[in-house]
Amino acid sequence: MTTTQKFTYDSLFSERSEDTPVRKVAHAKYDFAVAYPAPETLPMYGLIDALKAKVDSDGERVAKEMAYYPHVFGSPELREFTSEKLKADRDIDVDADGIVLTAGSGEAIALLIQALTNPGDVVLTERYVYGGTLTQLQKFEADVVGAPIDELGLIPDALEETIKRLTAEGRKPKWLYTISENQNPTGSTLPESRRREILDICHRHGLPIMEDECYIDLRFDGEAQPAFRALDDSGIVMHVASYSKLIAPGLRMGYFVASPELTSRAMSFKHGSGPNQFAAYAITGFLKEGLQRHRDTFNPLLKEKSDAMQRGFADHFADSGATLSKPEGGCYAWLTMPEGKDISSIRDEVFEGGVGYLAGPNFAPNDDGQNCARLCFAFETAEKNYDGMALLAQLFRKHGVM
Amino acid sequence: MTTTQKFTYDSLFSERSEDTPVRKVAHAKYDFAVAYPAPETLPMYGLIDALKAKVDSDGERVAKEMAYYPHVFGSPELREFTSEKLKADRDIDVDADGIVLTAGSGEAIALLIQALTNPGDVVLTERYVYGGTLTQLQKFEADVVGAPIDELGLIPDALEETIKRLTAEGRKPKWLYTISENQNPTGSTLPESRRREILDICHRHGLPIMEDECYIDLRFDGEAQPAFRALDDSGIVMHVASYSKLIAPGLRMGYFVASPELTSRAMSFKHGSGPNQFAAYAITGFLKEGLQRHRDTFNPLLKEKSDAMQRGFADHFADSGATLSKPEGGCYAWLTMPEGKDISSIRDEVFEGGVGYLAGPNFAPNDDGQNCARLCFAFETAEKNYDGMALLAQLFRKHGVM
Repeated sequence: MTTTQKFTYDSLFSERSEDTPVRKVAHAKYDFAVAYPAPETLPMYGLIDALKAKVDSDGERVAKEMAYYPHVFGSPELREFTSEKLKADRDIDVDADGIVLTAGSGEAIALLIQALTNPGDVVLTERYVYGGTLTQLQKFEADVVGAPIDELGLIPDALEETIKRLTAEGRKPKWLYTISENQNPTGSTLPESRRREILDICHRHGLPIMEDECYIDLRFDGEAQPAFRALDDSGIVMHVASYSKLIAPGLRMGYFVASPELTSRAMSFKHGSGPNQFAAYAITGFLKEGLQRHRDTFNPLLKEKSDAMQRGFADHFADSGATLSKPEGGCYAWLTMPEGKDISSIRDEVFEGGVGYLAGPNFAPNDDGQNCARLCFAFETAEKNYDGMALLAQLFRKHGVM
Repeated sequence: MTTTQKFTYDSLFSERSEDTPVRKVAHAKYDFAVAYPAPETLPMYGLIDALKAKVDSDGERVAKEMAYYPHVFGSPELREFTSEKLKADRDIDVDADGIVLTAGSGEAIALLIQALTNPGDVVLTERYVYGGTLTQLQKFEADVVGAPIDELGLIPDALEETIKRLTAEGRKPKWLYTISENQNPTGSTLPESRRREILDICHRHGLPIMEDECYIDLRFDGEAQPAFRALDDSGIVMHVASYSKLIAPGLRMGYFVASPELTSRAMSFKHGSGPNQFAAYAITGFLKEGLQRHRDTFNPLLKEKSDAMQRGFADHFADSGATLSKPEGGCYAWLTMPEGKDISSIRDEVFEGGVGYLAGPNFAPNDDGQNCARLCFAFETAEKNYDGMALLAQLFRKHGVM
């Protein structure tokens, strides 16, 4: 080993690069800050058995395919399955060649953002929006504006007013991002009538819609509404979804459907080949056999967990003036304290006290939401969800916000 | 479904986006164009057994980890294993926190390129360089210059002359990329003495070195030379490698080691979380048990395949004036026809005739190499390697280049 002075990179870093320290992830005793599905129903043996069955029946082909670099769109078999699933579940007509598998929906969203967004372009989202998308939009220097929402999600009239106001200001929005089913973070599901209105508005103003259906399989109450993509085949709708929440985030498998010319543009931001073929075999085999059985296993459990959190809220936040959204699925409920009660600045103290949550500003393009928090009900047990809400009320009282 | 006119994206695409049609991959009868390891030794059952053993022994933890989003650096256990492997195999001292797992080495290279390269920056490579890296460098608008090589790889004196010449032209190189072991495409291994000289040169001129050791485990003759990173701990060396060639590209698992401040910059180009946790369990478990056994299985087979291609060349290209490099490992031999014999423009016809190869210009930052081709000896059987060389000679004669 040559002993040398430390080499200095300072003047060599690219202009676009930034220091990006690793975020330390700590877990509170009652961890409502996470974005995880229920580990109890994570089907590791189901995945392994599916993988083994595939190798048993088709070993030579598997070995060849694993030795190849994956197709840049990902496993053809999983795309075929996804095409069938989209038709059966969402009435979306797209063949396997129209689907691009990605390393989680995060990669899908990043590719599409880059295809559509120049620095400074205005992008509309719900007033509170999935933090991962918000971070990516900001990284690509979008000017993100949150449009008004109520307990059902985006409000069509208010959305159009926002578009008109911004256009009049010389900031015409470029496109719209929405999680229309079991929204992250609020848990809302947008009714069909609003979707139709929003489609009309977006056509009138020339705004593509990116609908993110990451939580579509996680539904324990009510009914899924028709996908934007099923209501409109003009190409104005990009459809993004994922197997992360249906099976496991650790599999890193999401996908998108977009018009061919947009897909072609999006792929210019893709590095390397398609996602993990190994995981693709496991997912395809597992879901072909047992998609409905798996949903029937985890959705009742999710309901039990959600109900427990709702009971904990009802029992311990009575007369507090707070509201907790009542999702019909997904992983999250949205806590809103009375206006002026800042639960964002006491997050660390409450975490130390034993309850983790993500404060509103993490989801707020308009920098509001200090009185709000996202609570994940999917990860902890039902019992812990109830007890955690009791402790949360206690801690809020201790810190003077309740 | 509302029947609507096709939505037009034309004016909405970002300035940076480009049409990126999917490349159709076709396979010739004798497929030397690929970049694949030997499918015969791809250990699917070994991977599955390792995964199952992990779930059997540690199921609850696995379920929790799979339900989490992977650490942005990837699986801690696989990083721990990689740290031990780097010490044992390459005498590189780095702990698990200094290793970033990526979706293949392609992602590692893309992150580092972006951290170090502004549009127009000059990046040095070997005269013939891995096409994947070349494409990425060009995508990020680097000005790529190939430095002179011989059968041992980079030539230190010529490298320094190149640096001086470019600097005098106002094009001072920013950093150097090299595959120093079993190079892609030429198969060369750079001797230790040259590595030491190149380190001195790079220190003198302030050029970081990215060494790409994707082929380090694939060695059947001669001896691996010390890694640049083992010869110098100043931080000037970035070390990139992969489990794609050791186990399977379909697993999409590579990694890099860089100085902490460079790693922090590189991570600003990372989208989403770390790579596939599912594949990470399988890789870690499989290699912990059987790394050496696996190498002892596939390297003799690789040698047999390489030898067969060499015999085919010796028997059928005698007196042609052509040379074929004699790699001690890796996947590729480099065919050089006499100067002026253009085998690049007849590639499609030769493919139709039954032999696939990648022509020199795919690897040539300086736009030369029309008389050269990369032949992958790892994928086809030994018998097909021999027969394919016989057919290649026949086709070359038919097309008047031999």
